[in-house]
Amino acid sequence: MLKVIVWNENRHEKVNPEVSAIYPNGIHTTIADFLKEEGHQLTIATLDEEDHGLTDKVLKETDVLIWWGHKAHDEVKDHIAEKVKEHVLDGMGLIVLHSAHFSKPFIKLMGTTCDLKWRKADEKERLWVVDPSHPITEGLEKEYIELNKEEMYGEYFDIPKPDELIFISWFEGGEVFRSGATFKRGKGRIFYFRPGHETYPTYNNKEIQQVIKNAVKWAKSPGTLTPMFGKSQPLENFKSK
Amino acid sequence: MLKVIVWNENRHEKVNPEVSAIYPNGIHTTIADFLKEEGHQLTIATLDEEDHGLTDKVLKETDVLIWWGHKAHDEVKDHIAEKVKEHVLDGMGLIVLHSAHFSKPFIKLMGTTCDLKWRKADEKERLWVVDPSHPITEGLEKEYIELNKEEMYGEYFDIPKPDELIFISWFEGGEVFRSGATFKRGKGRIFYFRPGHETYPTYNNKEIQQVIKNAVKWAKSPGTLTPMFGKSQPLENFKSK
Amino acid sequence: MLKVIVWNENRHEKVNPEVSAIYPNGIHTTIADFLKEEGHQLTIATLDEEDHGLTDKVLKETDVLIWWGHKAHDEVKDHIAEKVKEHVLDGMGLIVLHSAHFSKPFIKLMGTTCDLKWRKADEKERLWVVDPSHPITEGLEKEYIELNKEEMYGEYFDIPKPDELIFISWFEGGEVFRSGATFKRGKGRIFYFRPGHETYPTYNNKEIQQVIKNAVKWAKSPGTLTPMFGKSQPLENFKSK
Amino acid sequence: MLKVIVWNENRHEKVNPEVSAIYPNGIHTTIADFLKEEGHQLTIATLDEEDHGLTDKVLKETDVLIWWGHKAHDEVKDHIAEKVKEHVLDGMGLIVLHSAHFSKPFIKLMGTTCDLKWRKADEKERLWVVDPSHPITEGLEKEYIELNKEEMYGEYFDIPKPDELIFISWFEGGEVFRSGATFKRGKGRIFYFRPGHETYPTYNNKEIQQVIKNAVKWAKSPGTLTPMFGKSQPLENFKSK
Repeated sequence: MLKVIVWNENRHEKVNPEVSAIYPNGIHTTIADFLKEEGHQLTIATLDEEDHGLTDKVLKETDVLIWWGHKAHDEVKDHIAEKVKEHVLDGMGLIVLHSAHFSKPFIKLMGTTCDLKWRKADEKERLWVVDPSHPITEGLEKEYIELNKEEMYGEYFDIPKPDELIFISWFEGGEVFRSGATFKRGKGRIFYFRPGHETYPTYNNKEIQQVIKNAVKWAKSPGTLTPMFGKSQPLENFKSK
Repeated sequence: MLKVIVWNENRHEKVNPEVSAIYPNGIHTTIADFLKEEGHQLTIATLDEEDHGLTDKVLKETDVLIWWGHKAHDEVKDHIAEKVKEHVLDGMGLIVLHSAHFSKPFIKLMGTTCDLKWRKADEKERLWVVDPSHPITEGLEKEYIELNKEEMYGEYFDIPKPDELIFISWFEGGEVFRSGATFKRGKGRIFYFRPGHETYPTYNNKEIQQVIKNAVKWAKSPGTLTPMFGKSQPLENFKSK
Repeated sequence: MLKVIVWNENRHEKVNPEVSAIYPNGIHTTIADFLKEEGHQLTIATLDEEDHGLTDKVLKETDVLIWWGHKAHDEVKDHIAEKVKEHVLDGMGLIVLHSAHFSKPFIKLMGTTCDLKWRKADEKERLWVVDPSHPITEGLEKEYIELNKEEMYGEYFDIPKPDELIFISWFEGGEVFRSGATFKRGKGRIFYFRPGHETYPTYNNKEIQQVIKNAVKWAKSPGTLTPMFGKSQPLENFKSK
Repeated sequence: MLKVIVWNENRHEKVNPEVSAIYPNGIHTTIADFLKEEGHQLTIATLDEEDHGLTDKVLKETDVLIWWGHKAHDEVKDHIAEKVKEHVLDGMGLIVLHSAHFSKPFIKLMGTTCDLKWRKADEKERLWVVDPSHPITEGLEKEYIELNKEEMYGEYFDIPKPDELIFISWFEGGEVFRSGATFKRGKGRIFYFRPGHETYPTYNNKEIQQVIKNAVKWAKSPGTLTPMFGKSQPLENFKSK
């Protein structure tokens, strides 16, 4: 049982009937629901709550934070984004979904622009597994996940070299994309997972759900050490020169 | 519960009283005993058994193989070493201990000489954790493991760049060493762990045992996919040019 | 000026008029010719020469070896393949082209099967750059190289995690492939580059030529150190315990 | 010939006679002087200049920026640090020396705290080469660089996993440190190099100078591509679904 927060911008759902038809209770609810099947303890947090629902108390107790945002990245307060970053460095897992490549916490943690190419054209995406012994692929039976309609994201994706590259996407229009990638930062474990445009039922897909379920388990830091920083006494005697 | 084989050369134990005083039933027994505490199902295999105790049947059912060898690497038959390599590529975990850096299966899997510097001088080793969120460090409470007397292994260690570098050793005589490193090969997961010279009671050390226990769990491949190779039909229609 | 050997199996050229129409003097000659433009000193070696043209003397003086092979990998003598591997570990650069993914030296150096999916269907390939500051991309002006007809190679490509991933290919039939990847082994630098099926004029393409030219410069080891291995004296005094 | 800026905080030199005795014209002058031997065009910039000497015009024309800072990191204006980061992402090389691990541009680019252990105790440091074919080691003849007295920096060093790990330091007091590491960010190439405490004559050491000379050449981005971001037209025709 892990303590998981699903954070959602939750704006498209309010204004775009196409989105609310697919996710009537918001993308966050769909994600939270399938994660509950795993026995995790789920909390929802959204942009329009006070402090975006991300108080110190809540973050401190969180094992893994999932982030979905798109059109209102700028409305996330800097000090909250900074706080999320600090909790990740301190060991909280972070799963960054789709358009959250441009979210403040992810950009701060990556140090790059996280920019990419995109196109919305009801396009087929096929995510190929390129790391078949990775726990994030557990339970998948096919070598790729196929999504009949998705937004295209194309290279160059301006991220640091991932620690592990798990999925590469093929798009009908001719592009490729590093679609599933892990990064360790401080004591925190981060997974970026590309699919999930709001006008497609991607988070209802069982294989996509499986990947996110796996990612939650993977992102929970197993580390038990607390590194000490600053001035340190020597562990060995040596002669002053 | 995992199926684990501890493979030991088991020669020093027979001829060197210094070794048999520390490991009266062989290094393999000491390792098997602390792994049994984890609930795993343990099998012992040694050099002098038929096929070195590594039949196809045994290997096929094995989740993780632990390998200790030193003075008789050459006596391991090539076809057995090749078979071990194939099982690793097919998903069997492999934990390579100390002087097994020169074992046939490890060299075949790495593709390099795996050579290094060494010195036996009752020397202090301190293994520093440099990846504090890695599951192989779980349960460790200090940032380093200190061994009062060990053999020294020094850089340059001629291995491919590890996928993950978990420990770096400091030695009293002035050297450093990449002491804990992971490598994925095929569907198999490999962990090299430096300490464990036969004349020191290293495998009785609780922190060393903890690392090996963790490594066994990590090395069990979670992959469920079986990649297909060879001639493939297209997944998309396209016009012949 | 570098000393470069282009090694070619040179069998298709002799029996398949489709190949000899494109490469009338063999694939090796085409590659050697455009490399000569860079001022390098080129040597040709082919399978049917004595020792496959790879004597100790020639290998010892070589900065970079380029390897193309396909249907006669098995005819390469084991001791020659082993020698090539040793020279790479000792600092010779190696550029592995297309179907040489299954060549003996590459498999020995990787430690994996190097298997993949394939299909010959006059299919479009688009190689996307995913490491735009890499010297192997120098001089490229577009973000991708497009080849109108090529053989398809698809993931999963059973190689160790590359040190650097430079190109990812998109194929018309729905697959992706890690098409340009670097690996350091010992003091040697290895570049695998996917395109180049014998029935297509791929090595006449100026961008493909540019990549291979860059790769030759990159693969020349700049290392000047010779690591020492074996028993070593301590660099520090310490008390025996 | 490259355009290189040496940026120095230049404060210790003004107040600490111990420092000005070693670097009478500032650390920056010492570094600039040995880089001039390579034929580069050198510019000096220091904290107390307007905009810290880092105008847009200067940065735009810079191939490689070298950064030394220690006690006044906080006085570097945020918008200047941000501008440095942007120029790195846009292709400017960055060499981060010693205590500049805590500089604003480096922290922004890494996304982590960049914290570490430290101790000033006139302690011996030995930097071991662990990547002997890397161009940054070119010209070194020994497998390590020995510095008789240096400040100690110890692990855990809170950085992302380096793209390449080139040096690991051994310290007399019992610690180790990843002392030479490369990171690509955007189109920029970054090298962190540990040694260089202000009260020791480290930058007069010929091997340290060699490494920095090599790093300047390495950090100059060879990339010629300019990735396009944002909305993109498809490269292939496909049927709307």
